Amino acid sequence: ESFSSEKDDEEQVFALFEFNEGDKGSPFLVKNNKKVQVPCIGDIVPYSNKVYDCTGKKYLGRSAGLCVVVEHHHASGGDLFETTMSHYLGDYGHISCQGPYMTYADSEMAVTGGTGRFAGARGWVKCQNIGGPLKLIYTYHIKGIPKLPAELCQPPVLSQVVKQPAPVQASED
Amino acid sequence: ESFSSEKDDEEQVFALFEFNEGDKGSPFLVKNNKKVQVPCIGDIVPYSNKVYDCTGKKYLGRSAGLCVVVEHHHASGGDLFETTMSHYLGDYGHISCQGPYMTYADSEMAVTGGTGRFAGARGWVKCQNIGGPLKLIYTYHIKGIPKLPAELCQPPVLSQVVKQPAPVQASED
Amino acid sequence: ESFSSEKDDEEQVFALFEFNEGDKGSPFLVKNNKKVQVPCIGDIVPYSNKVYDCTGKKYLGRSAGLCVVVEHHHASGGDLFETTMSHYLGDYGHISCQGPYMTYADSEMAVTGGTGRFAGARGWVKCQNIGGPLKLIYTYHIKGIPKLPAELCQPPVLSQVVKQPAPVQASED
Repeated sequence: ESFSSEKDDEEQVFALFEFNEGDKGSPFLVKNNKKVQVPCIGDIVPYSNKVYDCTGKKYLGRSAGLCVVVEHHHASGGDLFETTMSHYLGDYGHISCQGPYMTYADSEMAVTGGTGRFAGARGWVKCQNIGGPLKLIYTYHIKGIPKLPAELCQPPVLSQVVKQPAPVQASED
Repeated sequence: ESFSSEKDDEEQVFALFEFNEGDKGSPFLVKNNKKVQVPCIGDIVPYSNKVYDCTGKKYLGRSAGLCVVVEHHHASGGDLFETTMSHYLGDYGHISCQGPYMTYADSEMAVTGGTGRFAGARGWVKCQNIGGPLKLIYTYHIKGIPKLPAELCQPPVLSQVVKQPAPVQASED
Repeated sequence: ESFSSEKDDEEQVFALFEFNEGDKGSPFLVKNNKKVQVPCIGDIVPYSNKVYDCTGKKYLGRSAGLCVVVEHHHASGGDLFETTMSHYLGDYGHISCQGPYMTYADSEMAVTGGTGRFAGARGWVKCQNIGGPLKLIYTYHIKGIPKLPAELCQPPVLSQVVKQPAPVQASED
């Protein structure tokens, strides 16, 4: 069979790191509402970052998604977004999410489904900014899929990540 | 455990009101296709409204989403959209949806998942315009989550809502 | 009851054809990032095509969705998109998806849910380009819903489709 039955209905937890490394022109702020200087309703932010495993060292694939600006957060200078996005994990398949993202606080998104190992997944994911919005950790809590490989389900190695050098900056233009 | 097992697999029904009260510059029509005067494929409408409980009186949180224009409906002057959106319900968490929205007719969207009380939710939601597209009622039909609190699951008090004053209008510019 | 219990938890497979027939101005490339000539991060492509059953002959309804450009594929001249979309199947209801679409290769999307016959659906869908990106076949693999009608679940008649005339081209402007 191609995906799990409900007998596999135990929560599984795994973590991924997502780093913006300044490639592919991501993120790109589309400033549709030009009457307001800060990001506001009307603006959107397509993006795609790199995704690493729980050690922060093994490259697994990319994220890809669309952030819809909901509100600028003046206190922090950050923004609240409504987001649809996916994490692509190479041969493991992909997992898709929907919900809030904030550059200035943690958030929780809904898991909407997946493919490959993640086909039929249900649950949620905690999204934490570490070292600014360019480095994130996603901790998934999912059900409805067969047991994930042990290498995905190790506790995340946060210290490794914090020690990493800053991501490549986009060149000035 | 952080979300329900399939033993809680009974349908639960609850209703929310969503009011556009003219704040935050929502909705915002991004008119990308300038060759066609009415909304058409190419145009998008990010938005965020206020969400109230089934009495129409208790503020719970906000909606946030993106409407992608599919077609202008000439008979009514309204529009058909393809929508991804979430309802944020404070401490209860959020619930996410995907599917059609029409300003001139009722529609049904898929529930794609949620967080908090709604983690792992599956089902659908009926979306009805009451008093124009600025006042809506969403009636959710969901499974896969623990029993919701009674205050969420009362029948909606439609008469209260219809008697409310018109929403605040955006100022002219 | 309005949708299935988990007792109906067997995988069901069905196929749909999606044809772009040049109507409704679909697809529409919104070129937000004007510094890069080819499609790139920042650009989006709203669209809506026609959907036919597994024979390629019976019109069922339309697709509607948003493709977010992730990357141009220089070797093929095609593009990789992150997509949220729905297939509308008339009285059967609709089914919603999220994940990758490529104009130059097959892909797999997550099924995020549905309405009507597809309320509560979980699973995935294979998306194959046949005769270019204007003709596609989607093969769904889903669980969590009652048995689908036999007419939806026949093997797709691929030969019929390939023999069809080319889709109507958009007129020059």
